[in-house]
Amino acid sequence: MALIILAHPRYNSSLANKTIIEELQSSNQHHEVRDIHRLYPDYRIDVQAEQEALLRHDTILLQYPFYWLNLPAILKHWIDEVFAYQFAYGSQGDKLKGKTIIPSFTVGAAEKEYQLSGKHHMRIYEFCKSLEHTAIYAQMNYIEPVCFFGASLNVEAFTEEKVKRNAKHHAQKIIKILEHLEPTPGSVSI
Amino acid sequence: MALIILAHPRYNSSLANKTIIEELQSSNQHHEVRDIHRLYPDYRIDVQAEQEALLRHDTILLQYPFYWLNLPAILKHWIDEVFAYQFAYGSQGDKLKGKTIIPSFTVGAAEKEYQLSGKHHMRIYEFCKSLEHTAIYAQMNYIEPVCFFGASLNVEAFTEEKVKRNAKHHAQKIIKILEHLEPTPGSVSI
Repeated sequence: MALIILAHPRYNSSLANKTIIEELQSSNQHHEVRDIHRLYPDYRIDVQAEQEALLRHDTILLQYPFYWLNLPAILKHWIDEVFAYQFAYGSQGDKLKGKTIIPSFTVGAAEKEYQLSGKHHMRIYEFCKSLEHTAIYAQMNYIEPVCFFGASLNVEAFTEEKVKRNAKHHAQKIIKILEHLEPTPGSVSI
Repeated sequence: MALIILAHPRYNSSLANKTIIEELQSSNQHHEVRDIHRLYPDYRIDVQAEQEALLRHDTILLQYPFYWLNLPAILKHWIDEVFAYQFAYGSQGDKLKGKTIIPSFTVGAAEKEYQLSGKHHMRIYEFCKSLEHTAIYAQMNYIEPVCFFGASLNVEAFTEEKVKRNAKHHAQKIIKILEHLEPTPGSVSI
């Protein structure tokens, strides 16, 4: 069971993120999903509630759309507020130590744009350094981002059906990663 | 005259950022300062007002504290909302084309921590790739970040007086950059 931090300012009109979350929720896995934009539309985050949610879990999945090659503001704000001194860092700030964090995000453009010859020139992980260092600084295990490229209908001229199919496929990848990280109690790891 | 986007969620209790802004305001230069966290404490940004402010200027200075090796959320939100389709990008989205953008930010730790042997391992510019690519994607001129290291009293055991002195020095650096970019009308460039 993982904590899923859903960070999407326009979730109800989203296609890919909504399909991913619905697919995760209809799986056999039981996750705690926190839709932080719905919880905090005015950005006044309940820091204690969020820290308690983190303490309940060993695995945290961040699900969000990639906005301007970076986190959406609501997710950055969640980190700024919740990863506090003496919680995530500082002399007694080891509350996230050993927990696993997995960025899972949707990207409008196709993967080919994220290489030297593409229009964004760099690999996607290179745009995630700030997040990676944040996780490492909080003594967490950082799993490489699970990216869903071509999420925008306009950019790649994908049909709604194709984006939905790809989003389901993305969710299945996540389900496998989470299964691997958190074996069912009583099961034998092989 | 430049547009200064001041993005600090705790500006009134800040030392370095406040000193920098005050020093800029007491210079001979006349800038438009927009304190976006004071303007939008609930993160409901007036997109049109911000776009109009951008259109009034050729030079935009972003002044903020470096939070978790990245932009503070209010500044990311400002970008997400204001750098809109058909304004900053898209077939007619050339409204920022040719404008100059300068990140100016305060960093808690000392500069020595931003190298391979330091605790953040990477150079500061490497943490700014998302912002740099955002600027380039909007067809702006991106000026290398002007960084003020050691801004935190706790981290470097600096006195308040020393941080203030350094902040004034930082402001003077910015003033020189802005002078160079925007010669006084009637003056002769050499």
